[in-house]
Amino acid sequence: MTSIKKLLVANRGEIALRIMRTAREMGIKTVAIYSEADRHALHVRYADEAVCVGPAASSESYLRGDAIIDVCKNLNVDAIHPGYGFLSENANFARMVREAGLIFVGPSPESIEVMGSKLAAKAAVAAYNIPMVPGTPSAITDRTEAKRLSAEIGYPILIKASAGGGGKGMRIVEREADFDEQMDRAVSEALSAFGDGSVFIEKYVTSPRHVEIQVLGDQHGNIIHLFERECSVQRRHQKVVEEAPSAVLTPEIRDAMGRSAVDVARACGYYGAGTVEFIVDDQLNFYFLEMNTRLQVEHPVTEQITGVDLVKQMIYIAEGKPLAINQADLQIKGHAVEVRVYAEDPTNNFLPDVGTLQTYVRPQGNGVRVDDGFEQGMDIPIYYDPMIAKLITYGNTREEAIDKMIRAIDEYQITGVQTTLPFCRFVMEHEAFRSGQFDTHFVNHYFTPEVLQTPENTDESELAAVLAAYLMQQQKPKTNGSTATVAQQRSKWKENRLR
Amino acid sequence: MTSIKKLLVANRGEIALRIMRTAREMGIKTVAIYSEADRHALHVRYADEAVCVGPAASSESYLRGDAIIDVCKNLNVDAIHPGYGFLSENANFARMVREAGLIFVGPSPESIEVMGSKLAAKAAVAAYNIPMVPGTPSAITDRTEAKRLSAEIGYPILIKASAGGGGKGMRIVEREADFDEQMDRAVSEALSAFGDGSVFIEKYVTSPRHVEIQVLGDQHGNIIHLFERECSVQRRHQKVVEEAPSAVLTPEIRDAMGRSAVDVARACGYYGAGTVEFIVDDQLNFYFLEMNTRLQVEHPVTEQITGVDLVKQMIYIAEGKPLAINQADLQIKGHAVEVRVYAEDPTNNFLPDVGTLQTYVRPQGNGVRVDDGFEQGMDIPIYYDPMIAKLITYGNTREEAIDKMIRAIDEYQITGVQTTLPFCRFVMEHEAFRSGQFDTHFVNHYFTPEVLQTPENTDESELAAVLAAYLMQQQKPKTNGSTATVAQQRSKWKENRLR
Repeated sequence: MTSIKKLLVANRGEIALRIMRTAREMGIKTVAIYSEADRHALHVRYADEAVCVGPAASSESYLRGDAIIDVCKNLNVDAIHPGYGFLSENANFARMVREAGLIFVGPSPESIEVMGSKLAAKAAVAAYNIPMVPGTPSAITDRTEAKRLSAEIGYPILIKASAGGGGKGMRIVEREADFDEQMDRAVSEALSAFGDGSVFIEKYVTSPRHVEIQVLGDQHGNIIHLFERECSVQRRHQKVVEEAPSAVLTPEIRDAMGRSAVDVARACGYYGAGTVEFIVDDQLNFYFLEMNTRLQVEHPVTEQITGVDLVKQMIYIAEGKPLAINQADLQIKGHAVEVRVYAEDPTNNFLPDVGTLQTYVRPQGNGVRVDDGFEQGMDIPIYYDPMIAKLITYGNTREEAIDKMIRAIDEYQITGVQTTLPFCRFVMEHEAFRSGQFDTHFVNHYFTPEVLQTPENTDESELAAVLAAYLMQQQKPKTNGSTATVAQQRSKWKENRLR
Repeated sequence: MTSIKKLLVANRGEIALRIMRTAREMGIKTVAIYSEADRHALHVRYADEAVCVGPAASSESYLRGDAIIDVCKNLNVDAIHPGYGFLSENANFARMVREAGLIFVGPSPESIEVMGSKLAAKAAVAAYNIPMVPGTPSAITDRTEAKRLSAEIGYPILIKASAGGGGKGMRIVEREADFDEQMDRAVSEALSAFGDGSVFIEKYVTSPRHVEIQVLGDQHGNIIHLFERECSVQRRHQKVVEEAPSAVLTPEIRDAMGRSAVDVARACGYYGAGTVEFIVDDQLNFYFLEMNTRLQVEHPVTEQITGVDLVKQMIYIAEGKPLAINQADLQIKGHAVEVRVYAEDPTNNFLPDVGTLQTYVRPQGNGVRVDDGFEQGMDIPIYYDPMIAKLITYGNTREEAIDKMIRAIDEYQITGVQTTLPFCRFVMEHEAFRSGQFDTHFVNHYFTPEVLQTPENTDESELAAVLAAYLMQQQKPKTNGSTATVAQQRSKWKENRLR
């Protein structure tokens, strides 16, 4: 069992800061790396030490495993936390770190490798009874057999070209009567696209939810799960709103999913923090999708409802400590919601809108957490993901967390760039979201730029306030409060927020 | 049962904002009042409407109950939340509010009145078995009887002049052998100071802790308690650090204190949020001191460990709703610590140091809450309490919360005024505080300005970072990272914090 004294965070932005904060609380010294574009970034200032590892392009800086390991040697670093993205799921890097005699705060290179390949992952979990999307185990050419299997799986089904990709040779079959026609099309498309007419058949989940289970495993074979995160609100397969727990899981399903997730982790000898992703249908059947072998962007919602600091646990595990949390100790308390605030224009196809944060005032108060990497006056660089912040709210109930989120969004003041805050507010107020009855099609189904362009109300309350204040002054000549100034200030607040 | 649609907050600063945030989350419109000195204050901007009620002096603005009620009438306000201080424990104001047909978000004027008088409070709780500091029920002149009672109470005891005040005629008697001498002195001091030689005898609590119980009562007779807050770290009877739960209470004592607090509340027909203060000795005997009939400054630590939004509950209660929380539902989860950040110079006898917040960057991250009323560039007015913020941290354990507090204090950047942050850090690091073995003498016993003036270390890690970064560059000529800039930036961060 080693004790980590100095930790290098091989990442940038909010996640670098988030990791360093926990390290500080644990008395661990922190080292930041940065690209030339990030010279003035907050994570650089926050760290005890910071080293520039190359130019702006990630491939020349944040992805340069060799340079990062050199920094560790020079600064007597004993461990590297990769965060998410960049080198976090790079088995070769994890191996290099290990070979350099350093601690990788994450799973073994072998686990990363297995879960990085869909085929290898499937093979690894084969011995466990993990629910998979029902379908043919191998390519099929016998049409009668295919029809029989489809009936067994239940319509709608999906016909997928074995050699497929990009949706080519993929057909949805709603009912048996359509089977032959769609099969013909799929085979002919597959033949012409890939020169191979063999196909798979898979159940088509019409109303899919993306629900994932957080797991933690130590190096002694103990694995626990920390319940689910619901991540169905996605835009182009990118999660934009996450919450924990899910609004629809029953305790029984939650338990079953948790056990499956632990089995998946066990199947690849997993240690560290990991996430097992499932697709859940409208009957609450769940099917294993894949495992992410790292800390997730949306990990804070799990921290809020369990009280577990996931980064702290990752560090303990990397040090070789056995897990101090038992499955039985864990319980869900309250509800947490996270929205991702991007420098993107939701009224213009979410085009990135990088620039300078001219105003940047975070919401505050009870149950509000902002994980970000910026301060007022800073630039959002064009080189990286344009996420400004993760805004997380926590309440006793889902409704409380959502109401708090709306309050927090309204309180957030950002000018200088367009942000996705108005889009997030739209989601929070939408009946489908509030009722919990939504799936991964939510954004496609309900969002158009027009929903954000409803004319601002004429601000009657503002007018009323000015008028009332004026009347008050008339009554009290000694009070020379300049209400105009106040009204202006409040207008400015309103202007600043929700840009 | 009324539904509050528009709430006036008869207060300023952090507590006004804190109340308005909850109101917003509940969909209630907010009205701010402000003095001329507070024209640019955050609470004014935050409210839906805001009205100036007079000049800077509190007596001419925040204490003008008549003007405040006028504002309510003009703006169709239906309820007033008084916050703490100002009019919050003014029974006449509460009565005026009621007579104006408005809702006072707090207890009845009658409860305020009873608990506002030590004698009336004592009389009110007489029927209940509330532990009081042991002593003679009335003035005593018979010395033999006095000695007998003292032996019964147990030494040390306190002799207090009946007509006393300001410590005059007050003597501590450590043991029976000293009784006669001290009694002579007390009586003669009392005689010469007040012309009345009669005295009381009371147990002297040598190592007192200040522990208070949060209660909530509705208008239907339901009263619950939300456990304790430990507020023993005080400077001149002013709380400076608070936490929940206490590091020393046993579940049995906690339960007994909670039941006593509920009895005190019941004795005065209490509804709303209130706090019953106790003195606790080193044997964990507890004695009733007084009841505060309002929201306390330190209420957030209770919110963090119970998940109950006290302001929300106060509003529900004021609306006439029955409490939706049962005593059995409540449990302590984790540990919370609060420090009060004042614009005072701890190296110069805590002299107020008001001025402009030239730098003002709040700490962020998991488990950190800042309740404040300022933004960078704002002035701290000389007219009011110079509290800048309440910094609250929350962790699974006391140790975690304290470590987080140190991290958060280090992260707080304030320049332009001296603050009590270095003093708060001193408390957090002190062995007596960390061990939980402290009492209300903590600050007197341990704090001198010199403890903050230890020479800053020569910043070896900073030097090492610059050197290492330099070496890195030598190895990688293509990386022209200007480490000097980074070192400067980090130095600036260090400079800014802990001022």
